[in-house]
Amino acid sequence: MTVGATTWVVADGYIPPSSTGPAPAMTSHDSVCMLNAGDADARVALHLYFADREPVGPYELTVPARRAHHQRLNDLDGPEPVPVGVDYCCLIRSDRPIVVQHTRLDSRQAENALMSTIAYPAG
Amino acid sequence: MTVGATTWVVADGYIPPSSTGPAPAMTSHDSVCMLNAGDADARVALHLYFADREPVGPYELTVPARRAHHQRLNDLDGPEPVPVGVDYCCLIRSDRPIVVQHTRLDSRQAENALMSTIAYPAG
Amino acid sequence: MTVGATTWVVADGYIPPSSTGPAPAMTSHDSVCMLNAGDADARVALHLYFADREPVGPYELTVPARRAHHQRLNDLDGPEPVPVGVDYCCLIRSDRPIVVQHTRLDSRQAENALMSTIAYPAG
Amino acid sequence: MTVGATTWVVADGYIPPSSTGPAPAMTSHDSVCMLNAGDADARVALHLYFADREPVGPYELTVPARRAHHQRLNDLDGPEPVPVGVDYCCLIRSDRPIVVQHTRLDSRQAENALMSTIAYPAG
Repeated sequence: MTVGATTWVVADGYIPPSSTGPAPAMTSHDSVCMLNAGDADARVALHLYFADREPVGPYELTVPARRAHHQRLNDLDGPEPVPVGVDYCCLIRSDRPIVVQHTRLDSRQAENALMSTIAYPAG
Repeated sequence: MTVGATTWVVADGYIPPSSTGPAPAMTSHDSVCMLNAGDADARVALHLYFADREPVGPYELTVPARRAHHQRLNDLDGPEPVPVGVDYCCLIRSDRPIVVQHTRLDSRQAENALMSTIAYPAG
Repeated sequence: MTVGATTWVVADGYIPPSSTGPAPAMTSHDSVCMLNAGDADARVALHLYFADREPVGPYELTVPARRAHHQRLNDLDGPEPVPVGVDYCCLIRSDRPIVVQHTRLDSRQAENALMSTIAYPAG
Repeated sequence: MTVGATTWVVADGYIPPSSTGPAPAMTSHDSVCMLNAGDADARVALHLYFADREPVGPYELTVPARRAHHQRLNDLDGPEPVPVGVDYCCLIRSDRPIVVQHTRLDSRQAENALMSTIAYPAG
């Protein structure tokens, strides 16, 4: 079973710069949640775009065959840490079809807020 | 009237492991909300994908002709209960076109948070 | 400028049965927000689907040419009031292309929660 | 790398008319978050549609090549300020492909609520 697309975009990237509640569960974060329903591992590269400088990337990771991978942007290994409190966009490319959903937990105020959307499948 | 697709994906699955407020209304949950607008019953199979083990499924259910069916993942009958506090993805296949929307209510903190998105139509 | 589709689906319909805060702004509600960017009025018919009975409709309304129309489901005129605290799905058909976004405000607890998604364009 | 579409729609526009918490971070706002992943600047024009009067626009801005641009509707320069507490829809046209995500932060009550969706790609 192979489902999805190989290029995805999250246009509203932002890691809220403060948090309320126990870490790591309630730590403010942006996540890209990925499904690889296929029978071969997917190699995924993320590039981050900013308002005032050239893109940064690739941030590379593998989503194994038949696996879910929910990746907090906060925790990405790569060329540099993802800055907090800064607007960005995220372009995700995979060598195999995957599906991507973007979710933010914002706990800057005492109670957390959530938002989520299927990312934009671009190709 | 037949609308929708037969394969859908929710990539950000997660049942928050605690709740605040009266059950069942305010119990933290993930839901897949489905419309079968057609004139024949739809047989639906869900498979759940995890980060560190093989997929689990099928979880089988029927969405009758011309009916809405909002299914909490918490309440699924099937091969095994859906674990709480664990990242997953959900692949939904139907033998008739349906439409799927994914919603989470998170009441871990005192006030509830909500998120929702139309799922990804994959075929 | 004509944009959009003529058939749309909201799969997660639910009007929370209680509210906190001043009415009508903070009253718990489901909305279908519609744009008719074209130069002719759009006649729109909504049908509501339930878990345990036949669909109800049409609920009819007009979105004038070059106008926004944000319709709370709570306030629909039609064959019968939309029940609160009940799961439903909503099928929206228009004789002209429109765009539909679904939003819920849930103020059952002291602080409001929001969720929104572009509806599913079905044709 | 060129991704996206040149016409996008946000159907649920609304700037909540009050806020709780430190400005500007927690000021209630609507945002259109845009990625231009291409190698040429994108000239973008927004038109706003209302319930009871003719559309207003264009609001013009540039998303430079390989840049993210998150635009609060509250802060738009243009023919007139975007009214707060008023329902609207937003049509976004670009001379180059972009990707658009719509997000609202609502801090009318003590704790903020969030909602987000990829906008509707209309062409």
